[in-house]
Amino acid sequence: MLIVQKFGGTSVGDLERIQNVANRVSQTLKEGHQVVVVVSAMSGETNKLIAFAEHYTATPERSEVDMLLSSGERVTAALLSIALNAMGHKATSMSGRRAGIVTDSIHTKARIESIDPSAMHAELALGKVVVVAGFQGVSESGQVTTLGRGGSDLSAVAVAGALKADLCEIYTDVDGIYTTDPRIEPKAKKMERISYDEMLELASLGAKVLQNRSVELAKKLNVNLVTRSSFSNAEGTLITKEENIMEQPLVSGIALDKNQARVSLSGVIDRPGIASDIFTRLADNSVNIDMIIQTSGHDGKTNLDFTVPKTELIDAKKVVETFIADDEISEASYDECICKVSIVGVGMKSHTGVAAKAFQTMAAENINIMMISTSEIKVSMVIDEKYAELSVRSLHNAYSLDQ
Amino acid sequence: MLIVQKFGGTSVGDLERIQNVANRVSQTLKEGHQVVVVVSAMSGETNKLIAFAEHYTATPERSEVDMLLSSGERVTAALLSIALNAMGHKATSMSGRRAGIVTDSIHTKARIESIDPSAMHAELALGKVVVVAGFQGVSESGQVTTLGRGGSDLSAVAVAGALKADLCEIYTDVDGIYTTDPRIEPKAKKMERISYDEMLELASLGAKVLQNRSVELAKKLNVNLVTRSSFSNAEGTLITKEENIMEQPLVSGIALDKNQARVSLSGVIDRPGIASDIFTRLADNSVNIDMIIQTSGHDGKTNLDFTVPKTELIDAKKVVETFIADDEISEASYDECICKVSIVGVGMKSHTGVAAKAFQTMAAENINIMMISTSEIKVSMVIDEKYAELSVRSLHNAYSLDQ
Repeated sequence: MLIVQKFGGTSVGDLERIQNVANRVSQTLKEGHQVVVVVSAMSGETNKLIAFAEHYTATPERSEVDMLLSSGERVTAALLSIALNAMGHKATSMSGRRAGIVTDSIHTKARIESIDPSAMHAELALGKVVVVAGFQGVSESGQVTTLGRGGSDLSAVAVAGALKADLCEIYTDVDGIYTTDPRIEPKAKKMERISYDEMLELASLGAKVLQNRSVELAKKLNVNLVTRSSFSNAEGTLITKEENIMEQPLVSGIALDKNQARVSLSGVIDRPGIASDIFTRLADNSVNIDMIIQTSGHDGKTNLDFTVPKTELIDAKKVVETFIADDEISEASYDECICKVSIVGVGMKSHTGVAAKAFQTMAAENINIMMISTSEIKVSMVIDEKYAELSVRSLHNAYSLDQ
Repeated sequence: MLIVQKFGGTSVGDLERIQNVANRVSQTLKEGHQVVVVVSAMSGETNKLIAFAEHYTATPERSEVDMLLSSGERVTAALLSIALNAMGHKATSMSGRRAGIVTDSIHTKARIESIDPSAMHAELALGKVVVVAGFQGVSESGQVTTLGRGGSDLSAVAVAGALKADLCEIYTDVDGIYTTDPRIEPKAKKMERISYDEMLELASLGAKVLQNRSVELAKKLNVNLVTRSSFSNAEGTLITKEENIMEQPLVSGIALDKNQARVSLSGVIDRPGIASDIFTRLADNSVNIDMIIQTSGHDGKTNLDFTVPKTELIDAKKVVETFIADDEISEASYDECICKVSIVGVGMKSHTGVAAKAFQTMAAENINIMMISTSEIKVSMVIDEKYAELSVRSLHNAYSLDQ
């Protein structure tokens, strides 16, 4: 098999850990696989370099920041390659540019546009391990770019896609994706397989492991993604396309999001385009809306409830106040003490009664559901924050996720 | 004017010093010049990275060492560019590759083969300062290479040549080239101008400032080279072609080399090719020969005296012993207590009596001259090491170099 293995900053945090990574790559080679490794900067290195830049200005030129930061991954790639060569393997390190990773020119948060894998193919054909500096690419104009947060994961997925690798393993300090947060429900189980769409909906469970950007790219490029621990040999969780998952459970996992706040507008003038106006103005002020519920009120007016990230509530309030000042909204209330609990599973598509069971479970615990939104594979409920953990445990139990 | 300014590791040793460099570049810009800056890695950084590599093996792959080390100059280039932008200038940093520096593929000691200055020209045309990561280039196959010791100076000279810059300033912690080592002769004066050839012959005076490789390249590319101090505003020394030096002094400087040892062979069989055999075998054993004197002996045999670096004397002895064992040489003696003192000046070409004055000066001090060699612009004498400083001071005085 051709396997892409990605190791993050913690996994390559010092010289000994880089040796551990070399040992793991060596093991994979001995099992007869071809390996391309993608590495992050040693943990702390990127922050150190940012502090250096901020010695001169709070707003360094982004193109220069990219030049600065991209050195971190190059160092790790070279050191890992040296360690592998020292073990008797043939390894070669590559910058993002040499690995053929071409991006747009939005410095510090560039998007990968294409990958020319010919240099990687050539080195693999010589029997070498290719060690790619993650997080970076090169723009059409030849300047180094970086991919922003989670960038090395994106590098790994894109490289795996371009090489048509059999597997893309993302190594972190967590050994996989669990049916829910094990700190809330100790009976949470590690999932063996999960579909891309489920993973995207369960973002809050995997956020620390994998960003949605990477999962979306894996889905687009049809890359089999595995998240596993660099500190143990435990099997991780395979994130793959739905067809590859034989037995679909009704529900795969329970996600909890405590970072939401609710905005309730009443007496909204019911003129055409009012909702569009409100949400456009919120978007213009960089407020992200999650759930939206519109209910009819009286006197030709409506009620509008929506949720925003807690950190954006202040900005949302400012926008709402302008509509109140213009007499387009009578009243607004804000509630930060809420949370969103979601059940996710591709099995829902073909089974009825999945959502009903969720509502029954909440009712049995006397938990009031404030808002509901559903998609093909997800049911989300907004409830009082104080029931957050209780609801997660009850739902986990109701769908027998500990079995 | 278009000026290339090169700052070494000590000059960019920490964030404050990089700010000082930015101030100096800013001053040059304010004087109305265009500036391209070439920087080394922050002092200590390269050694740190080498120690990292040696954690894994004493003999890391050279291509990987290049990937590793080249990150150091990139960091400095980015930081200086950030500092310049913060001061309101427009600056852009470039890797060796982006600056168009193409080398051969001899990793860790690559030679510059060509420079495509189009990216630098384009940025200069936009009114920007270009900050180039020194010491590095890219091979035809697209791998990063480094230029070995003194590599950033070479980068600067090559960039200046490719851009047809008016001046290439090399900033170090020394403010120029002196008529002799000021630690030996406190009356030594800083030279205003000196020709490439004189500089090459005076290598021992400038060795800590500038390697011969850089001077040779400057001569080849016709680059006006200035060495000056990054810690003062004193004018430095201009190294340029002979025609640019109006008033040629007879003698420009006195150089002293205490690192030589003398090998004296007597009773060397006088057959055709014997000298060639001896010196070929020495070269094959990496022994560098400096001066050679052959004198006729008797019985159809000759005497051969030559000097080698002290550190290579052991290897030289081994080679000589094999010729003695083969009865091709009767006897050999070795003398480590010698030194070589040289007077250098392009004025010698057109004036007679320059060498004679040197010999008179030595005679007046009762210093015995063991060996003499002359070139168009240099007279070198091997003498007893104990007279090293005395001879330098006497010659400095005899040619009125303190005037």
